[in-house]
Amino acid sequence: MTLDDILEQINQAEKIVILTHENPDGDAVGSSLAMYHALKAYGKSPDLIIPEHPRVFDCLPGINEIKTQSDIEHYDLAISLDCATIKMLNGFSKYFENAKVKVCIDHHSTNTMFGDYNYVNPAAPACAQILLVVLEYFGIEITKEIGTCILAGIITDTGGFKYQGVTAETFEFVAWLLNKGVDVSKVYRQVLQTKTKSNFELNRIASDRIEFFENGKIAYTYITKEDEEKVNAENGDHEGIVEIGRDIEGVEVSVFICQTSKGCKISLRSNDYVNVSDACMVFGGGGHPRAAGCTIQGTIEQAKEKVLKEVSRLL
Amino acid sequence: MTLDDILEQINQAEKIVILTHENPDGDAVGSSLAMYHALKAYGKSPDLIIPEHPRVFDCLPGINEIKTQSDIEHYDLAISLDCATIKMLNGFSKYFENAKVKVCIDHHSTNTMFGDYNYVNPAAPACAQILLVVLEYFGIEITKEIGTCILAGIITDTGGFKYQGVTAETFEFVAWLLNKGVDVSKVYRQVLQTKTKSNFELNRIASDRIEFFENGKIAYTYITKEDEEKVNAENGDHEGIVEIGRDIEGVEVSVFICQTSKGCKISLRSNDYVNVSDACMVFGGGGHPRAAGCTIQGTIEQAKEKVLKEVSRLL
Repeated sequence: MTLDDILEQINQAEKIVILTHENPDGDAVGSSLAMYHALKAYGKSPDLIIPEHPRVFDCLPGINEIKTQSDIEHYDLAISLDCATIKMLNGFSKYFENAKVKVCIDHHSTNTMFGDYNYVNPAAPACAQILLVVLEYFGIEITKEIGTCILAGIITDTGGFKYQGVTAETFEFVAWLLNKGVDVSKVYRQVLQTKTKSNFELNRIASDRIEFFENGKIAYTYITKEDEEKVNAENGDHEGIVEIGRDIEGVEVSVFICQTSKGCKISLRSNDYVNVSDACMVFGGGGHPRAAGCTIQGTIEQAKEKVLKEVSRLL
Repeated sequence: MTLDDILEQINQAEKIVILTHENPDGDAVGSSLAMYHALKAYGKSPDLIIPEHPRVFDCLPGINEIKTQSDIEHYDLAISLDCATIKMLNGFSKYFENAKVKVCIDHHSTNTMFGDYNYVNPAAPACAQILLVVLEYFGIEITKEIGTCILAGIITDTGGFKYQGVTAETFEFVAWLLNKGVDVSKVYRQVLQTKTKSNFELNRIASDRIEFFENGKIAYTYITKEDEEKVNAENGDHEGIVEIGRDIEGVEVSVFICQTSKGCKISLRSNDYVNVSDACMVFGGGGHPRAAGCTIQGTIEQAKEKVLKEVSRLL
């Protein structure tokens, strides 16, 4: 059983590092922090090294203990959370690659099993929800602190308890958290609902640009680098934009292109039947059947043409 | 105990009518339908007479059995659900007033106790959630059908499980529903998430018009009758507009004015500390501390000035 092996590795390790994917979302940050608190409670002193996160997550317990680098070159154990490929560890993959033992805990169906031990459950709506099972198996008590971080991961990765992957366990866990005194409503508001002014402005610009294709089954919009500069956008200020199109009646796939210095970042969301992960895989990306992403080089117009062609094929 | 009395009245009544407030929202429609199914399961043949509802609720079981009028002048029993005042029963108040026995089940703190028997619990996040307690007390089994209608009420009145009133029972109930095979995600999408094209267009117009006052603590926007005509708006197409402002960082109160043939309809939402029900009461309206409404006569500019003055006082 993988979890027994992982626990054994944790027991044996002295220097542990926790890592997650680039451009970390709520599940990445929440899962990492939950694991961090859990390992500390278990008597370990892990390092949590994750990239710059959207400031909506500053409310989470332990957020100030995140490191952005480490002098330790060879950790005894590296644990990657919510990350589908080693490439997505980006600048931090060295800590993973150089570790004696590598563990991967994730819920992406496109996970490449890049650890020595991989605990990957694509049926879980969030990596954070997997931790509920993992920590219980390890005999680590879910404190209010750990529960809050897990909750942040679940809320963000289920779009606020609304995506199809959400399970009875999700809701039972939230009921339990509420009974423990966690202000679920406050956490929800902080990590998912509240928009920064820049995020609001980007949403407004993207809304104004929405175009429909294939009889309204595809909604398309984009944000340029100039838009971002104009509204002083920060990391995380694109949250919610791809959902604008997805939530319009009749739309099956929402396409959002965000121009970055590394190319056009494509986000796809679908409602009922299109596996958008398939479309992203064509361009070297991936994700979940209803939420996926990739990067395409070239102008926004070129990227738009390529991605719309792929998505149309899947309708 | 009021519930014993209400059950006795149900037992004694032959002709029962179920009513709810004008411009019915998801809690009004969901609660009414749940009570309708419950009374049928209990061996009664109630009439469900409610005003035109937004078509997002067409997915709910029993929706086609709603009547818009009745030949029966004197019902044995009238049950009003989710309605704070008799005035809000609007064109249907006659069925209530003429009934031999009047029952009021509600969760508005501003409820005027206009029934002979009033079961009002302002601590419940939705009237539909009260029905969980009521039906269990009556010994009526919550079927998948009844559960789905209750879920619709809870989802819409809690903004998708996110408002402060949400309780552990809410989440336990949803877990239970999921285990019963209800597609919670689908119901959520249908009743709350999906926007009609007209709704999307109104949201876009309202977003473009947002103004901030009092150092960004108040967000204000409006929709005119011409806007509605331009986008072919239907009943329900204003859903979500007042939330746009509320969800922007730093905003405490969101003010939305909708021009109607009866005057300017004001919707207020607050985040943390302003009791917007107080502001609405000044203009003869009411609601909940964080969500309330009223109607002000005059032009949009006049209504804006009046309501912003009241809201500013409460900051």
